[in-house]
Amino acid sequence: MIDEKGILFILSGPSGVGKGTVRRELFEKANDLKYSISMTTREKRAGETEGIDYFYKSKEEFETLIEEKQLLEYAQFVNNYYGTPRKYVEDTLADGHDVFLEIEVQGAMQVKENFPEGVFIFLFPPSLEELKNRIVSRGTESKELVLQRLREARKEIEMMDAYNYVVVNDHVDSAVSKIQSIIQSEHCKRDRIAKQYKQLLEDEMK
Amino acid sequence: MIDEKGILFILSGPSGVGKGTVRRELFEKANDLKYSISMTTREKRAGETEGIDYFYKSKEEFETLIEEKQLLEYAQFVNNYYGTPRKYVEDTLADGHDVFLEIEVQGAMQVKENFPEGVFIFLFPPSLEELKNRIVSRGTESKELVLQRLREARKEIEMMDAYNYVVVNDHVDSAVSKIQSIIQSEHCKRDRIAKQYKQLLEDEMK
Repeated sequence: MIDEKGILFILSGPSGVGKGTVRRELFEKANDLKYSISMTTREKRAGETEGIDYFYKSKEEFETLIEEKQLLEYAQFVNNYYGTPRKYVEDTLADGHDVFLEIEVQGAMQVKENFPEGVFIFLFPPSLEELKNRIVSRGTESKELVLQRLREARKEIEMMDAYNYVVVNDHVDSAVSKIQSIIQSEHCKRDRIAKQYKQLLEDEMK
Repeated sequence: MIDEKGILFILSGPSGVGKGTVRRELFEKANDLKYSISMTTREKRAGETEGIDYFYKSKEEFETLIEEKQLLEYAQFVNNYYGTPRKYVEDTLADGHDVFLEIEVQGAMQVKENFPEGVFIFLFPPSLEELKNRIVSRGTESKELVLQRLREARKEIEMMDAYNYVVVNDHVDSAVSKIQSIIQSEHCKRDRIAKQYKQLLEDEMK
């Protein structure tokens, strides 16, 4: 009906809170949401496709893009860069699609700086006890690492103030339903759409 | 889980837009929403109950409440006062229930002044043509009155800027679903709940 731009949604929260599970469930239900495609300098693996799994770049290309502020956020892991290309996000939004980004807290803070008009959703653990259980049950971390991750989680929770919404991940279904509501209601925000609606009526009166 | 206060939601929009229909559908689906009970000076009719249909007051009592700013909004029709008592709304919110108010644009503007922390939803006609059809199809208005109502509607649409959300009433089901999303997402707003969540974790760490 009206020519509406898409919205960038950023889901983040402490490690162990269940961001990935919530994102996968959400994407099974919300089929008009586009997942943000990352850019990387790591080698393309068999079966992967440019522009679907990742955008593949050389180290030099990636560093030029960093300098040109063409990444909403980036980080380095095991000698490779990973990041969120601004151009893909902006083009997809301009086409009228929402973009969804699931990301660690540090990355989300970078996105906040580079794209403050995004809608930031903090996934909150039902309790610290439960967060600890989830980290432990992965089975991949030593006792020392679990404690370190918990300390980090507590620091990350302090960053909640930079977010627009807080969703408790007590049940995946309930968290997904809340995120769907946030997406739908953000599209009803008066400051996003009032101008276009008024225009619509004015055109009708001509 | 946390001790959350209710939220006051105000649904308004030009006459003929279908506020009443949307509100009735919403209440069939959202059973934990409390409808705001009005106060009136008109006589109690057979079958009506104090505190369910209305709060009944004498003209003198009502005017005292107006002076004491105990009404979020009020108006006079056919020599009787009708209004929204602040106390009922505040007590219900304090009990943790959301309150829902469906009201004309003039009244909503009064509520905005007296209770700016409410969440204001503007119900928008799919088109002026459709709004005209709806007013005409009521069959109760003369041609002159229809035109007058349309002129009023256009003025009322200008007041959209005072609202938080705009929902198009193209299909009742879709409008109701959007309002349900607004209600759910408002409860996830960080500024409403972050403090309590942080407190929760701090209590756990003691």
